[in-house]
Amino acid sequence: MIILIQCADQVGLVASVSKVMADAGLNIISMREYVTVDENRFYLRLEIAGAPSQTTGLEQRLRAVLPQNSSILMNNAQQKKIAVLVTKEYHCLGDILLRNYFNTLGASVECVIGNHDTLRPLTEKFDIPFHQVDHTNKSREAFEKELLNVLNKHTFDYIVLAKFMRILSPQFVAAYPRQIINIHHSFLPAFIGANPYRQAHERGVKLIGATAHFVTDTLDEGPIIAQQIIPVNHAHSVKDMVVLGKEVEEAVLAKALQLVLQDRVIVDNNKTVVFEN
Amino acid sequence: MIILIQCADQVGLVASVSKVMADAGLNIISMREYVTVDENRFYLRLEIAGAPSQTTGLEQRLRAVLPQNSSILMNNAQQKKIAVLVTKEYHCLGDILLRNYFNTLGASVECVIGNHDTLRPLTEKFDIPFHQVDHTNKSREAFEKELLNVLNKHTFDYIVLAKFMRILSPQFVAAYPRQIINIHHSFLPAFIGANPYRQAHERGVKLIGATAHFVTDTLDEGPIIAQQIIPVNHAHSVKDMVVLGKEVEEAVLAKALQLVLQDRVIVDNNKTVVFEN
Amino acid sequence: MIILIQCADQVGLVASVSKVMADAGLNIISMREYVTVDENRFYLRLEIAGAPSQTTGLEQRLRAVLPQNSSILMNNAQQKKIAVLVTKEYHCLGDILLRNYFNTLGASVECVIGNHDTLRPLTEKFDIPFHQVDHTNKSREAFEKELLNVLNKHTFDYIVLAKFMRILSPQFVAAYPRQIINIHHSFLPAFIGANPYRQAHERGVKLIGATAHFVTDTLDEGPIIAQQIIPVNHAHSVKDMVVLGKEVEEAVLAKALQLVLQDRVIVDNNKTVVFEN
Amino acid sequence: MIILIQCADQVGLVASVSKVMADAGLNIISMREYVTVDENRFYLRLEIAGAPSQTTGLEQRLRAVLPQNSSILMNNAQQKKIAVLVTKEYHCLGDILLRNYFNTLGASVECVIGNHDTLRPLTEKFDIPFHQVDHTNKSREAFEKELLNVLNKHTFDYIVLAKFMRILSPQFVAAYPRQIINIHHSFLPAFIGANPYRQAHERGVKLIGATAHFVTDTLDEGPIIAQQIIPVNHAHSVKDMVVLGKEVEEAVLAKALQLVLQDRVIVDNNKTVVFEN
Repeated sequence: MIILIQCADQVGLVASVSKVMADAGLNIISMREYVTVDENRFYLRLEIAGAPSQTTGLEQRLRAVLPQNSSILMNNAQQKKIAVLVTKEYHCLGDILLRNYFNTLGASVECVIGNHDTLRPLTEKFDIPFHQVDHTNKSREAFEKELLNVLNKHTFDYIVLAKFMRILSPQFVAAYPRQIINIHHSFLPAFIGANPYRQAHERGVKLIGATAHFVTDTLDEGPIIAQQIIPVNHAHSVKDMVVLGKEVEEAVLAKALQLVLQDRVIVDNNKTVVFEN
Repeated sequence: MIILIQCADQVGLVASVSKVMADAGLNIISMREYVTVDENRFYLRLEIAGAPSQTTGLEQRLRAVLPQNSSILMNNAQQKKIAVLVTKEYHCLGDILLRNYFNTLGASVECVIGNHDTLRPLTEKFDIPFHQVDHTNKSREAFEKELLNVLNKHTFDYIVLAKFMRILSPQFVAAYPRQIINIHHSFLPAFIGANPYRQAHERGVKLIGATAHFVTDTLDEGPIIAQQIIPVNHAHSVKDMVVLGKEVEEAVLAKALQLVLQDRVIVDNNKTVVFEN
Repeated sequence: MIILIQCADQVGLVASVSKVMADAGLNIISMREYVTVDENRFYLRLEIAGAPSQTTGLEQRLRAVLPQNSSILMNNAQQKKIAVLVTKEYHCLGDILLRNYFNTLGASVECVIGNHDTLRPLTEKFDIPFHQVDHTNKSREAFEKELLNVLNKHTFDYIVLAKFMRILSPQFVAAYPRQIINIHHSFLPAFIGANPYRQAHERGVKLIGATAHFVTDTLDEGPIIAQQIIPVNHAHSVKDMVVLGKEVEEAVLAKALQLVLQDRVIVDNNKTVVFEN
Repeated sequence: MIILIQCADQVGLVASVSKVMADAGLNIISMREYVTVDENRFYLRLEIAGAPSQTTGLEQRLRAVLPQNSSILMNNAQQKKIAVLVTKEYHCLGDILLRNYFNTLGASVECVIGNHDTLRPLTEKFDIPFHQVDHTNKSREAFEKELLNVLNKHTFDYIVLAKFMRILSPQFVAAYPRQIINIHHSFLPAFIGANPYRQAHERGVKLIGATAHFVTDTLDEGPIIAQQIIPVNHAHSVKDMVVLGKEVEEAVLAKALQLVLQDRVIVDNNKTVVFEN
């Protein structure tokens, strides 16, 4: 079982938490703790082993020793579920569908929703339901209402924007706090907005990158989960950069999903605490 | 001998240039050519071997076969010279002085100029002249005038801003076109301006970087020569990022100097063509 | 059109070759030349643009100016074809099938052959013929004879061993010189042979890697095309390393295929000359 | 204060240790724990804050709750000391001397010993004692006896082999268990032994690397602390690789020293547990 805790810091928190585990006869396989001295915040990731019966009432026993307003996320081994939103580009979705098909994603893909129909054939090859929600000739409100209708037919823990090229309204985002993961085609905060590869080419940069982040209500903002870069040079055209960029996007989204699905990411305000291996 | 050529593209340029070499009995050790189809520009780097007598009049013979307004830079093995401007941080200067002392820099350091006196002892250990040009209680004009006076006492091919924390005026920069190399403590164009590491920390990025570039008259703009990044995480404080950042700054400036001093960089407008190995 | 040339070096080769192009009115879009001073070898990659009629007889005209025994490979834009050999692991095949389906592979997959039947369902989803050639209860000769029978039903330029876990005999390899590309689950030459991740874990290395190479008749030898690494630490079990290793294997095989299929790789003895962007 | 613990694993260790801290009123700033399930080993790194009086008797109180034969390393903020052994190459020593001079090494350099006199001038510029211990016309025993005599005049926590090109006997190494840090000019375990860059060049690898490790009595074995690589290609001569290799060597030794001097490395048998940021 994985337990993620965040709360105000105080002396003795690790002792209290690990005493709760020891009293329950639970073994701590791995523990990662991080404290911000300036903001006085305490973050903890615990991986514990023991019989299911030993974890009964564990949250209450933890709350009893933690400060008020502590956030506790307890995750048993139960498979997580995701919904994937796409537009036309296949590379991120293809990678997710392959991992899902061979049970290496760490989650099950419940459905794929596209504002275009382009990726239906690929999705249906893998027997995953594909829904088109066309955005043309619609207000954003109407479009998002339809989107919500389709989403509400499924259960899921996260919405993955796998190159979904529509901007979601703050209202939509607010309905899924810290549940929407986006892959942004740029090394944020450089080249925010449209055509980052054209911008990168014009600036003559020697590296391009991609950023996976949780979506908040500000465009291309939101807590960053993972970033990666790839070297480029003068000989890379905008088109070459787009091609290379897709490789980074796919890699960085895959990494971010793995981190989130393994409960290695704690979100606090606009930042993440990521307990990597 | 290294020859760098840039000009408008036309059919047969490589043939014409290499015929000039063959006619002179010069052997082409390495040739790198790059053509931009959109802008119709031709860039060439030639490394040739032969007796000095064979290169007499070579530039004229090249001009005879090249379009008008071609830029030809011919560089025999003669040692290049640099002047280094610093403020208080030692890491880039230290690296340059060590390489200079052991003859692995590919240039000789003619002098070091600091707006503070902090790095005089280090510089003088290596028997390099150090000049302080204090900026306090002076207009920028007065400061730069003094700077020019000191610089004019030395001959050099490039001015290296090795963590020189004063902004140079467009007038000063114009006096040394494509001759001033700066190391910027950020992965441009992210975090332009002051306190990039604080900005990076607040944004919660997972990579920080540094950029070496030629200085033009716009702050933190100018043709990029080299960029590099280093991974960071939530546990890195601003201070940690500054420390890590120095490692990247030193590495990327060293790389950029090597590229420039080996005549591997052609500048065209606001971009570079870098012919790496 | 791409032209790859390798031959003994002599003065004036670039001039002669580029004069042939200029005489034919062909424009040199990009030229990469490399000369080994010690071994006196000349390697050239040319990308030229012009009408098909201008390239008639081009090879003979090139041979007329090049040394005897020159190797000339001329490649028009015609789509390349590959056959893929697999065992049970899906990650490299999945990536290849996806790129093939969306026409971004730079080749067409003609068939997939497995010594197990595990990857038939995945392959057939993409309407690619899958053949099982079972190796059990067979001599290597008998197995490879069957393999050849199946391969002979298809035409292809390269055989890609996408995690094919059988060792091919020198006789088999000799039938496809410089045509067989393998992905080796290690940063060669470290950890040659079986269980490289177990070896890596026991040695406590901090990086693991993968190598794509042409297959010659010595196990895990053959000219290296591309290599890549990924950082690991004490907390990675052998199983974790296997998982991470698959990511690198997929990435490095994809890169190697791209380099080979874009005619950027010249093989000379046991080494490659790779003209990257 | 930093505390490093390694011992046999058992339920409740973290609870017991953190209770000791809480009882003493010490705040745990950062805690990193790692357990190997297979080998049943427990590793812990604690960073604690509190008044010196609170840490009195802390080791005994820890021993009271830990299994027998636990290894406990307690490190107050006291400056560490190192001795550096060199031969002729300056790059690693130069980096160490610079950091030492500007107090960013995290240790003080007590002396530099060379089997050649080449690096005396550099060392003495920084007012560090340099001793030459010539190895010519001497048995290894005699050479090492002299070396020990010189070393015994200084106190130090670690011996850093900063490109020291003599092989030390098992007897010598045994005198400084887990105290000798070496930089090896190769990505171990590839290219063990002499001339790794020549080997790498002949094999046509696309990456070269360097390894920092503790020295044990087997050549080029010993627990690895850090490894890094740099890309190379066909155009890099052996000499180019040597030059590039020095950059990696310097970087990886600097990183390893930082990890060791910040008490982030626990050695267990032939492996390290490295608690990076």
